[in-house]
Amino acid sequence: MVDRGLLIVLSGPSGVGKGTVRKAIFEQEENDLEYSISMTTRKERIGEIDGSDYFFRTKEQFEDLIKKDGLLEYAEYVGNYYGTPLEYVNRTLDSGKDVFLEIEVQGALQVREKMPEGIFIFLTPPGLKELKSRIVSRGTDESSVIESRMERAIEEINLMQHYDYAVENDKVENAVAKIKDIVECEHLKVSRVIHRYKKMIEEL
Amino acid sequence: MVDRGLLIVLSGPSGVGKGTVRKAIFEQEENDLEYSISMTTRKERIGEIDGSDYFFRTKEQFEDLIKKDGLLEYAEYVGNYYGTPLEYVNRTLDSGKDVFLEIEVQGALQVREKMPEGIFIFLTPPGLKELKSRIVSRGTDESSVIESRMERAIEEINLMQHYDYAVENDKVENAVAKIKDIVECEHLKVSRVIHRYKKMIEEL
Repeated sequence: MVDRGLLIVLSGPSGVGKGTVRKAIFEQEENDLEYSISMTTRKERIGEIDGSDYFFRTKEQFEDLIKKDGLLEYAEYVGNYYGTPLEYVNRTLDSGKDVFLEIEVQGALQVREKMPEGIFIFLTPPGLKELKSRIVSRGTDESSVIESRMERAIEEINLMQHYDYAVENDKVENAVAKIKDIVECEHLKVSRVIHRYKKMIEEL
Repeated sequence: MVDRGLLIVLSGPSGVGKGTVRKAIFEQEENDLEYSISMTTRKERIGEIDGSDYFFRTKEQFEDLIKKDGLLEYAEYVGNYYGTPLEYVNRTLDSGKDVFLEIEVQGALQVREKMPEGIFIFLTPPGLKELKSRIVSRGTDESSVIESRMERAIEEINLMQHYDYAVENDKVENAVAKIKDIVECEHLKVSRVIHRYKKMIEEL
C-alpha cells in the first residue's frame, strides 16, 4: 500500500504572484506534484480542454455537487462558480501523489476546515510597501479602489495565522525553491514515516 | 530585537553516523549554525582547547551545575560526566543564532523535556539490516554484544516518535542537505515569522 500523498495549498494576498509561482513550479521538469484541476461553470474557451484546463460543468451539476458536499472549496465569481472537486483530490492523494492547489485566501480557509492535515503555504510580498506598489501599478485604478485592495491585503495577512508556512515572494525562483523544500521536509516528518519503520521492526 | 534562534537536535541510534553527518555540516562554508560545545569532567587531552572542544570542569563544578538545573542534558559515561550547558545554549539562541546539538537518544529526550520547542531530527539507518551490518562491522565483538546493541537500536527507533523529523542516512551528503533544508523550512513557519508581519502592518 502506498502512503497517501500530501495536499499542498499555496495561497496569499491578491497580486502577490501566486499564479506566476505556481506556473514556475509546474514548468520544472523534476516535479512530483499533481496540479489540482479546478471545476467551473464558466464557458469553455477556444483551446481549453475539459479535464485538463478545468472540469467544465453546468450550473446545475455544480450546485448538485455543492449539495453533496463534493467540493473542497468553491466560490462564485462574476456569475460563475469555481471550485475544487473533492473526489479528484482524494483519488490523487490515495494514489500516493502530492496534490498542489493554488487558490485565493478564502478558498484556502475552506480547505483548512475540510482537510486540516494539508500543508498551507502563504505567499507574502517582500514588504507591505512593495505590495502596495504592486497593487497600485496594476493599472489606472482610482485611489478608492487601491485603498480597498490595500485594506483587503492587510486583512489577508492577518489570515496568515491559519497557515503553516510563510514564503516571501522576493524572487519567483526563490519562492519556488522554498516551496519545493517545504514539500520535501514535510515528507520527512516522523508522524508521516514512523509506520514504515515500525513495519521494518516487525519484519525483522 | 533579533528573533531567537532555533535549537536543532540531531540524534539517532548508536552507529548510525551522527558524528560524521555533524562534521560534514560544520565543514561546509555557508553555515549559520552554532555548534553546541559540551561540558565534561574528563581530562583535557593534548591539543584540546577549553571552551572550544569542550568546557572542561571538575566533578564538583559539574555536580554543582546539575543541582542548579544548569544543564540541558547530561549523562555519566565511563566515570565522567558529559553534558550541555543550558546558559551557553540560551545565550547563543538569544543572539539570534541557531544552535546545533548532536547527542545520544537519551540526551535528546532530556532536551525535549526542557526545550520542547526545539527541532528534533532523528537520523535513521537506510534499513534495519544495514544498521545491523554497521553494528556488527564495528569490530570483533561477541554475538551477545551485537545482539544487545541490536535490541537497543530497535528500542531507539521506537523512541523516534518523540522527534519531529526522520532523516535517512543513506549518504552523508544527502543527510546533510536534508538537515539544512529542515532548518530553512523551520524558519519559514508562520508561528515564527508572523510577529514581523504584524509589526509591518502596525508601521503602515
